[in-house]
Amino acid sequence: MKVGVIGLGYWGPNLVRNFSAHSEVTEVAASDIREERLKFIRSKFPAAKLTTNYNDIIEGDSDLVVIATPVATHHPLAKAALLNGKHIWVEKPFTASIREAEELIEIAERKNLKIFVDHTFIYNGAVIKIKELLDKGELGNILYFDSERINLGLFQKDVNVIWDLAPHDLSIMSYLMKGMKPKALSATGIANFNGLENLAHINIHFEQNCFAHFHVNWVSPVKIRRMILGGDKKMLVYDDMENFEKIKVYDSGIEYKSTETIHEALVQYRIGDMFSPKVNQTEALALGAKECIAAINENRQPLTSGYDGLDVVRLLEASDLSLKNMGKMIEIGDSLLVT
Amino acid sequence: MKVGVIGLGYWGPNLVRNFSAHSEVTEVAASDIREERLKFIRSKFPAAKLTTNYNDIIEGDSDLVVIATPVATHHPLAKAALLNGKHIWVEKPFTASIREAEELIEIAERKNLKIFVDHTFIYNGAVIKIKELLDKGELGNILYFDSERINLGLFQKDVNVIWDLAPHDLSIMSYLMKGMKPKALSATGIANFNGLENLAHINIHFEQNCFAHFHVNWVSPVKIRRMILGGDKKMLVYDDMENFEKIKVYDSGIEYKSTETIHEALVQYRIGDMFSPKVNQTEALALGAKECIAAINENRQPLTSGYDGLDVVRLLEASDLSLKNMGKMIEIGDSLLVT
Amino acid sequence: MKVGVIGLGYWGPNLVRNFSAHSEVTEVAASDIREERLKFIRSKFPAAKLTTNYNDIIEGDSDLVVIATPVATHHPLAKAALLNGKHIWVEKPFTASIREAEELIEIAERKNLKIFVDHTFIYNGAVIKIKELLDKGELGNILYFDSERINLGLFQKDVNVIWDLAPHDLSIMSYLMKGMKPKALSATGIANFNGLENLAHINIHFEQNCFAHFHVNWVSPVKIRRMILGGDKKMLVYDDMENFEKIKVYDSGIEYKSTETIHEALVQYRIGDMFSPKVNQTEALALGAKECIAAINENRQPLTSGYDGLDVVRLLEASDLSLKNMGKMIEIGDSLLVT
Amino acid sequence: MKVGVIGLGYWGPNLVRNFSAHSEVTEVAASDIREERLKFIRSKFPAAKLTTNYNDIIEGDSDLVVIATPVATHHPLAKAALLNGKHIWVEKPFTASIREAEELIEIAERKNLKIFVDHTFIYNGAVIKIKELLDKGELGNILYFDSERINLGLFQKDVNVIWDLAPHDLSIMSYLMKGMKPKALSATGIANFNGLENLAHINIHFEQNCFAHFHVNWVSPVKIRRMILGGDKKMLVYDDMENFEKIKVYDSGIEYKSTETIHEALVQYRIGDMFSPKVNQTEALALGAKECIAAINENRQPLTSGYDGLDVVRLLEASDLSLKNMGKMIEIGDSLLVT
Repeated sequence: MKVGVIGLGYWGPNLVRNFSAHSEVTEVAASDIREERLKFIRSKFPAAKLTTNYNDIIEGDSDLVVIATPVATHHPLAKAALLNGKHIWVEKPFTASIREAEELIEIAERKNLKIFVDHTFIYNGAVIKIKELLDKGELGNILYFDSERINLGLFQKDVNVIWDLAPHDLSIMSYLMKGMKPKALSATGIANFNGLENLAHINIHFEQNCFAHFHVNWVSPVKIRRMILGGDKKMLVYDDMENFEKIKVYDSGIEYKSTETIHEALVQYRIGDMFSPKVNQTEALALGAKECIAAINENRQPLTSGYDGLDVVRLLEASDLSLKNMGKMIEIGDSLLVT
Repeated sequence: MKVGVIGLGYWGPNLVRNFSAHSEVTEVAASDIREERLKFIRSKFPAAKLTTNYNDIIEGDSDLVVIATPVATHHPLAKAALLNGKHIWVEKPFTASIREAEELIEIAERKNLKIFVDHTFIYNGAVIKIKELLDKGELGNILYFDSERINLGLFQKDVNVIWDLAPHDLSIMSYLMKGMKPKALSATGIANFNGLENLAHINIHFEQNCFAHFHVNWVSPVKIRRMILGGDKKMLVYDDMENFEKIKVYDSGIEYKSTETIHEALVQYRIGDMFSPKVNQTEALALGAKECIAAINENRQPLTSGYDGLDVVRLLEASDLSLKNMGKMIEIGDSLLVT
Repeated sequence: MKVGVIGLGYWGPNLVRNFSAHSEVTEVAASDIREERLKFIRSKFPAAKLTTNYNDIIEGDSDLVVIATPVATHHPLAKAALLNGKHIWVEKPFTASIREAEELIEIAERKNLKIFVDHTFIYNGAVIKIKELLDKGELGNILYFDSERINLGLFQKDVNVIWDLAPHDLSIMSYLMKGMKPKALSATGIANFNGLENLAHINIHFEQNCFAHFHVNWVSPVKIRRMILGGDKKMLVYDDMENFEKIKVYDSGIEYKSTETIHEALVQYRIGDMFSPKVNQTEALALGAKECIAAINENRQPLTSGYDGLDVVRLLEASDLSLKNMGKMIEIGDSLLVT
Repeated sequence: MKVGVIGLGYWGPNLVRNFSAHSEVTEVAASDIREERLKFIRSKFPAAKLTTNYNDIIEGDSDLVVIATPVATHHPLAKAALLNGKHIWVEKPFTASIREAEELIEIAERKNLKIFVDHTFIYNGAVIKIKELLDKGELGNILYFDSERINLGLFQKDVNVIWDLAPHDLSIMSYLMKGMKPKALSATGIANFNGLENLAHINIHFEQNCFAHFHVNWVSPVKIRRMILGGDKKMLVYDDMENFEKIKVYDSGIEYKSTETIHEALVQYRIGDMFSPKVNQTEALALGAKECIAAINENRQPLTSGYDGLDVVRLLEASDLSLKNMGKMIEIGDSLLVT
C-alpha cells in the first residue's frame, strides 16, 4: 500500500513516521507548501517522496491520502482525493460543517472508498481499557460524563477552542457511550483576545437521563486532562496527566431506596475500594494506522469512520450555533445518512 | 452581648462553641425541637441555656439571634427576630427568594438592626489572602473565574445541589470580584435520583468582558474544591483540598500583541515562576463572629451583610429559573434597594 | 472500671475523652502539676476528678493508671502504680531502657496485672487493613520495609528525633512483620541545633533475607509519612498524608528466573494493576481503649503489651548505641524474658 | 571537530543525535559490536560513519572519543583513546575504581587532553537553577541533603544499584555543595535476587556539621526522584517527577535561640511562603556537549571533569567497602592528585 500525506505541520511528522513503520506500506509520499518543513522531513525520513504540490499526492499513485491540514481545507482536499479513487485519512475535526461531512460520506459510499477520521484517543490504551470496563457493565448505567481539557495552550488563528480541543473529548464520549443519544446541547464561553473563544463549556442532554459537560480552555495556568464517568454502580476517573494511575475505578456510589415515608432519607452514598487497572502503552497512532489499513484491506468501516467524524462535527456545529445565541439550547438532529 | 442560636444540626454546635468563646458574649442560649440535639449540646457546653421552643429565643433577651435552620424557615424566623428588635445572623443561603431577602433588609434598615449572612468562606484565610492579592492588582484584569466543588456528598431533601453548595462559591466570587457586574446567567444540570438536581453547572457573563463558571456535584467519586482566576497579568489557583499549598500564583499568562498583518500570530503565552503565599489558619467562624459583633457595636454593615446575601440569592433564583427553562440565559436584574 | 490519667499535655485530653466515652468506665480521674491544664480539662470534661498530685491517682481507687508523661518518668510512675495493684497504660515509648521495661514486665507478671503500651498506630484503620492483607499472604515474602516520617516538627528537649518519632514506625513494623527477627541495626544522623539528633536513619537487617530502613526528621519543609513494603508477589505503599487512598497495593514486582546461561537477564520486572482498599475510619485511640479494657476483663495480654513495648525499646536502645559509635552495626539481643 | 562514539546501547543514540546537531561537529563516527544497533543508528542518522570495531574509532581521526560502554570497559577504552591523543567523554560512573580514575587523569594532564565525565544532571535546568539559588545564599548553611531515587527498574547484571543509580545523586550533591568536604561514609542494603544489592542507603558525614543520605532502589512499586536540601535560612525540595513545579523553595525553617535558662524551648520553627522558580527546559545532553566542546576549544577543564568523576568514584568505592563490612563507617581520603 502506498500512502501520501498532505500537511507536515505539528502532527504530520508523526504520521509519516507511523506509516513508514507499517509493514504493509511500501511507499510514503508527503507534501507541504513550506520548503523548510520538507527539509525537516527529509532529514528524518530520507526515503519519503516529497513535493510542494499537494496535487502530486492527490493525483499520484497513493492508495491512501492522509489529510493533516487546517480544517477549512479538509473538505476540498478530501473530496478531490475521493474523486481520484483514494481512500482518505482525515485529521480531527473531520470537516468544518455537517454538510461537508455528509457529502464526503456520500462520495465514499458511492465509490466504495474508506474514510478514516483520526480520533486518535480512541486508540489510546486508557480509553480502550475504559471501553472494556463499560462493555462489561462495571459502572452500571452512566449518570453523567464530565470532561476537562485545559492548559496554557497555543491559540489557533482559524478556529475557536471548541473546534481545537473538544473533538478529542466529544469523540471519546461518543465512543464510550455508544447507544446513548445526544438530544440537545448548549455552549457558553468567552473570547478575551482575538474574537475566537479561548474558553468554553458545552453541556449535553441525552435522551436517556444522562448529562455531559465539557470544559475546554487555552488560558489555564494548570494543565488538566480529566474525565469523570458517574455510573450508578461504580464511578471512574480518567486522568491523562497521571503518569502511572491514569484510570481509577471507585466502588463508591449512590444508593437510592424508595421508602414509604417521604420524610426519610431516600438517597445514601457508599464509599468503597478503588481499583486502577494497568494500561497498555502502545502508541495510539500506530494502532490507528493499523486499523485504517486493516479496514481498507478487509473492505469494512474502520472503528473511527466518516460517520463517527460526522457525529462529532454535528456536536461542534451545534456548539457554534449555541455560542452565537447566548447559550441557547440546540436540538441535535438525526443524521439523514444511514449508518 | 447575649446570643441565641436557633437550630442545632450539623453547623449549630460550631456556632455555640464560637460565640461561647467570644470575650464580649455573656450568655449563649440555643434551641432545637430535637431533644437529643439539646442533650448533645448540654454535654459539650454545660453553660448554654437550652430550650425546645425557638420562640424562647426570638422573644427572649438575646441581642443577636443566630438562625441555622433549613433555608425555607430563614425568612419567617429572621423576620420575627427583627420585629422583636434583634440583630440577626443567618446561615447561607440567606433566604429562599429575592423577595424574602429584600423584605428582611427593609425591616432591618427601618429598625436600624444588623443582618449578618454567614458566607463563611469570606473569613477563610485563603480567601482573605486572595482578596489581598487582587486588591494589589497582582493578577491584572480578571478574564475568567472557574469553580469546582464536587464530592460524594450528602443529598439534601429540600433543596438541589445549587442551593446547597453554590452559595459558597457565588459568595466568594462576589467578594473577590466586587465591582464586576453579573449581566446574565444560565444553568444546566441533571436530577438522577429524587427530582432535585444532584449535578449542575452555572455560567455567568459579566458586563465587563469576563466569564464565570461553577460546577457543583453531589455524585463525584473524587473530592475537588478548586477555583481558577485567570488574570491578564497572572493567574491564580486556589485548591482547598491541598493541606499546605492552597494558593498558587502563576506568573504565566497571555500576551496579546496587535500587529498590522492579520496573518501573524497575535496571541502568545508565557510560562513563569510560581509563588504560594502562607495562609492564615484562624478558624473562619471565629473571625465571622468577631466581625458580626464588631459591626453591631460600631453600628455599621458587616463585611457579609444582607446585601451580600441578596446578591447570592439573586444568582440562585436566576439559576433555578434557567434550569426550569432548559438552560435559558437569564438576565440578572439590579437590586431595587439602595446599597 | 475506674481510670486515672497522669499527665495532661498534648495527648492527655484525648485520653480523658476516650476513657470518658467508654461504656464500662464509671469514673475518670486526672492529674497534672500545671493548674492551667487542669482548668482546661475541667472546662471540657466537668465530670473528671482532677488533682495536681499524681499520688492521688497512684494511691487512689483507679483500676487502670494511664501514664502520659515524659518518657524519663514512665518507669517510676508505672512501677509505683503496679506495686499499688493497678493495671497500667503507658504512652510510647514504653520506657527509657530495656532494663526498665523488663522490670515492669516482671512485676506485672508476678502480680497478674496488665501492661498496655499505647502503640496507637496498631489500632489505626490503615495498619489493620495492611495486617489483614499480609496475613492473607497478598504480598508474598517481604523483601524490604521502608519508612519515612518527616516534618517541620516540634523539637523535644529531652529526647532525640528517634525516641520521639521512630516508636510509631518501629511498632508498626514489629506488628506487621511478626515472625521476622531483627538481627542487627545501625543508626546515623545529625544534631544541628541543641545536641539532640534532629534527623536520623535506622537500618535493620533481619535473620530472614529482609531489610528495613527508617527516616525520621524534625527539619523537613514537607510532611511525609509513607511506608513501602516490598514483597516478592506484590508491593504496598501506605501514605498517611493521603486523604482517601492511604493504601495502594501494586500487582507489580520482580520475577527471578534461574537460567543455565549466566549471561542472560535473570531478573525481570512486571507492571500490573493497582488496588486501593477502603480503610476503616474509627479513631485508633477508641479501639485502643477498648482493647485495653477487654484484655483486663478477660485476663489476657493486650494486642500491644509490655512485651511489644520492650521490642521497640530494644531497637531504640540499639539505635542510641549505634549513633554514639558512628553508625556501628549493633546486634539485637534476645529477650531474657519468656513471652 | 570530529567525534567518535563507542557503545550504542540505551544512551548511545542520544549521544549521536546531540553531537550530530552541534554546529562545530563535522563528522560523527560510531561503533558497536552488535550489528542490529548499527542498523538502528543507520536508519536514524544516515550520515554517521559506522563500524563494529571500536579500534576504528580509537585509532581513527576523531578529536573526541565518547565512551558509552559498561563501566568495566571505561578504563581500557579511555586509556587507549588518551594514548592516541584523543580527548575523551566518559559516561557515568567515570571508572570502576579510584586507581583507574587517577591513572586516566594523570595521562590526560601529561598530554594536555580533556576528560569530560557525563554527569548529565549537572546540565539539567532544575539543577542549574538550584545551584544559582545556593550561590546567592538563599538557603543559608546546608544542614542536610536527602536524596531518593527509587523505581521498579531494570536490574543491571554487572553492577549493584549503587553503581547504577547513585552516581547521578552523588554528582549532583558534589556539584551543589562544592566546598563541603565528605569526611566519612557508610552504606547498607540488601541483595534479594542475584547477589548484587538491589536496594541501598548511603550516609555521608561532612567536615562541616552537615549530613547527607541517599536511597537507591530497583524494586520500588512507585517512582520517586526527590531531593531535599535543608538550609538554616530556607529549605528546598527538588522533585524530578513533577511536570511543572520541579523546585520548591520554602521560606520555612528553624530558629535557634540561645537562652540563659536551659529549660526553655531553644528551637522553634517557622512556616512561610513557598516559591517555585521556572526551570529551563533545554536538553541536558545538548548543554553537556556544548560545554565539552567549549572546554576543548578553550583548553580548560570542563564543568564535569575527570576530577569530578574521581570525586564520585571515591564515594562509590567507599560505599562498596562499607557494604562488605556490614555498614562500617569508612573515611573518605583526600585525593593524591592536585586539582
